[in-house]
Amino acid sequence: MKLSGRITEMKQSPIRKYYVYANKAKAQGKKVYCLNIGQPDIKTPKAFMEAIRNFDEDVLEYAPSEGMPELIESILGYYKRYGMNYTKEEVLITNGGSEALTFIMSCILDAGDEVIMPEPYYTNYVTFISMADGVVKPLTTNAENGYHYADKDKIEAVITPKTKAFVIGNPGNPTGNVLTREEIRMICDVAKKYDFFIIADEVYREFVYDGKDMTSFGQYEDVADRVIIVDSVSKRFSACGARIGSIITKNSELFSNLLKLAQGRLSCSTLDQIGSAALYNLEPSYFNEVKAEYEHRRNVVYDELCKIKGIVCEKPSGAFYITCKLPVDNAEDFLIWLLENFDDKGETVMFSPAEGFYATPGLGRSEIRIAYVLKETDMLRGIEIIELGLEAYKKR
Amino acid sequence: MKLSGRITEMKQSPIRKYYVYANKAKAQGKKVYCLNIGQPDIKTPKAFMEAIRNFDEDVLEYAPSEGMPELIESILGYYKRYGMNYTKEEVLITNGGSEALTFIMSCILDAGDEVIMPEPYYTNYVTFISMADGVVKPLTTNAENGYHYADKDKIEAVITPKTKAFVIGNPGNPTGNVLTREEIRMICDVAKKYDFFIIADEVYREFVYDGKDMTSFGQYEDVADRVIIVDSVSKRFSACGARIGSIITKNSELFSNLLKLAQGRLSCSTLDQIGSAALYNLEPSYFNEVKAEYEHRRNVVYDELCKIKGIVCEKPSGAFYITCKLPVDNAEDFLIWLLENFDDKGETVMFSPAEGFYATPGLGRSEIRIAYVLKETDMLRGIEIIELGLEAYKKR
Repeated sequence: MKLSGRITEMKQSPIRKYYVYANKAKAQGKKVYCLNIGQPDIKTPKAFMEAIRNFDEDVLEYAPSEGMPELIESILGYYKRYGMNYTKEEVLITNGGSEALTFIMSCILDAGDEVIMPEPYYTNYVTFISMADGVVKPLTTNAENGYHYADKDKIEAVITPKTKAFVIGNPGNPTGNVLTREEIRMICDVAKKYDFFIIADEVYREFVYDGKDMTSFGQYEDVADRVIIVDSVSKRFSACGARIGSIITKNSELFSNLLKLAQGRLSCSTLDQIGSAALYNLEPSYFNEVKAEYEHRRNVVYDELCKIKGIVCEKPSGAFYITCKLPVDNAEDFLIWLLENFDDKGETVMFSPAEGFYATPGLGRSEIRIAYVLKETDMLRGIEIIELGLEAYKKR
Repeated sequence: MKLSGRITEMKQSPIRKYYVYANKAKAQGKKVYCLNIGQPDIKTPKAFMEAIRNFDEDVLEYAPSEGMPELIESILGYYKRYGMNYTKEEVLITNGGSEALTFIMSCILDAGDEVIMPEPYYTNYVTFISMADGVVKPLTTNAENGYHYADKDKIEAVITPKTKAFVIGNPGNPTGNVLTREEIRMICDVAKKYDFFIIADEVYREFVYDGKDMTSFGQYEDVADRVIIVDSVSKRFSACGARIGSIITKNSELFSNLLKLAQGRLSCSTLDQIGSAALYNLEPSYFNEVKAEYEHRRNVVYDELCKIKGIVCEKPSGAFYITCKLPVDNAEDFLIWLLENFDDKGETVMFSPAEGFYATPGLGRSEIRIAYVLKETDMLRGIEIIELGLEAYKKR
């Protein structure tokens, strides 16, 4: 009973495969500072659980396949505040941003169709593309130029007749890159010229720093039929355990086909939808404090990383990740060594080696991703251990 | 921007496409008895919401991709009571039975691989198979022989070198068929002989009537590596709005590959998992009353349907559906006519035409599915309207 080609070729999540080593380190009694995962410590707004605690129906029924009206309404209100006018026939609720991407890929990709993605990328994009038998076409960037990918010539160089879509995380995971208005305009023009979809993963929309504006692909009317926005409550409201995402698009043909998949899986969690409606209804001022906290952490982490001799690191403008190049040949080896053979006063550190965030073999081997979602003292200590570890690693 | 072949060929859910007509009827002021959907009116056990209301963490975090330990433990306990011993490495929590099936198909089907299914079938199976570019091979049954499909010769006749799996809902939706021990043994032997997976959708396991035993495919050790059980809390605990299902299999190679997909989508709803753990921990006696209620409804509905002249209907043994053949050429036309042109004292009825439950063109056109999930008086009135409607329809 052979398994499918797509699943046997699919790699294990690079973010999670190092847990074995971290667990061993913990079993040895070491404290491990986990700079690797995007699980924020910011409190989930109380409105979420309050809305759920108030649920008092006798029967926990299926929600409508397209999503509960009160949640869709609250999302429409949120977008309206950003000058984006969508109707309820343009918002589909999904089981997290993950299901949103799975549905989109299934709807637009035939076997062998290509999807452009800047590398390093959010690795799970590959899972969703692979499930639809699509092919990743990487748009290669590097640490030295700050992982900049919005270059017309570079983009045109990877376009082929099989290009169906460009997946853009903006702000981006793992690089924290944020596109300018001009860059977005250019990408829209290229998408029109070569006729492909723009899949805009804007789940980190609220986390843009240095007073910069967040521009959404949803703000460009001339490409409204080819823009597909992916959204989620997970990071925006620190509600990762609520599996509520959405697909927002003005392409009605695409929408009606997405609906077939949504109807096939019946519905999303009723309670999570009720709680999420309360989240989207929060005052916009809610984000001020959260954003300030992340921006502060970004500054602290960046400044501390810059003290490491030989590091290549640009200050990210958004999201809550920083990707940088360490003065080691192989960051994976370094991480495993840190977990197995190193400690400073009984403590060590975990981060994400970035090689798995690249499609091109050999790239990213010296790079790592850090998620700045922990409190300041823990992050500083984690980076200090990286620095101490690097010295010891060189002498080993 | 062409959409994928798989999605454009995919049909809209036949269960939901008649809502347009039902909504029009309601807008005209008609009361519509909805015998069409599997949304039970049985109360969700209070333990579910109680467990969730007690959740008091500051941050609603991601659950582990494979599922929360307390839920997996409670599922293991439930299976143990049925003499089935699984370990925690053999249970994967999913976003409902729907995601379970999506993952399974993605893991076992290459494009063009075939999946055997008795027809009429649960139509969403087709969605999950199509997403993996698989092909449905129907095992045709008919109302006259009670939709019986467990016939060795008939099964062997549809097996080809491309057969990868046999999907079996047991008890079955939409027929209510329940397999005997001998039939299960025979199917296991055929699966071994021709080397394919058995995907056993046992979500209706607790609803088997007439004092019959429920036999699980999980009870046969010699096929443990090829049996994949799909489970869900939706129907079993009347908790459809909680999107918690599971995949249970002793095939460790399959399991580790399923885990790649689970990690790709990060996690299932944390709160729904907490509530569902409480459900699986309920005393087995919980099911006695629920089962008695469904069995009573089954009897009532069946007896009432038998009064309709010209109906072909066998008493189902499980689940909460009954499929039967009406004395009309086209049940879809009849339904639309009932909603648009008929009422009795301002009331009409909705059911599911069964043609969409068949892959073979032209089959099932006279058949309908009724879900007996409403209270007795409503169901009796619904069937009475079908009877009155049939008389008027003939004379139209």
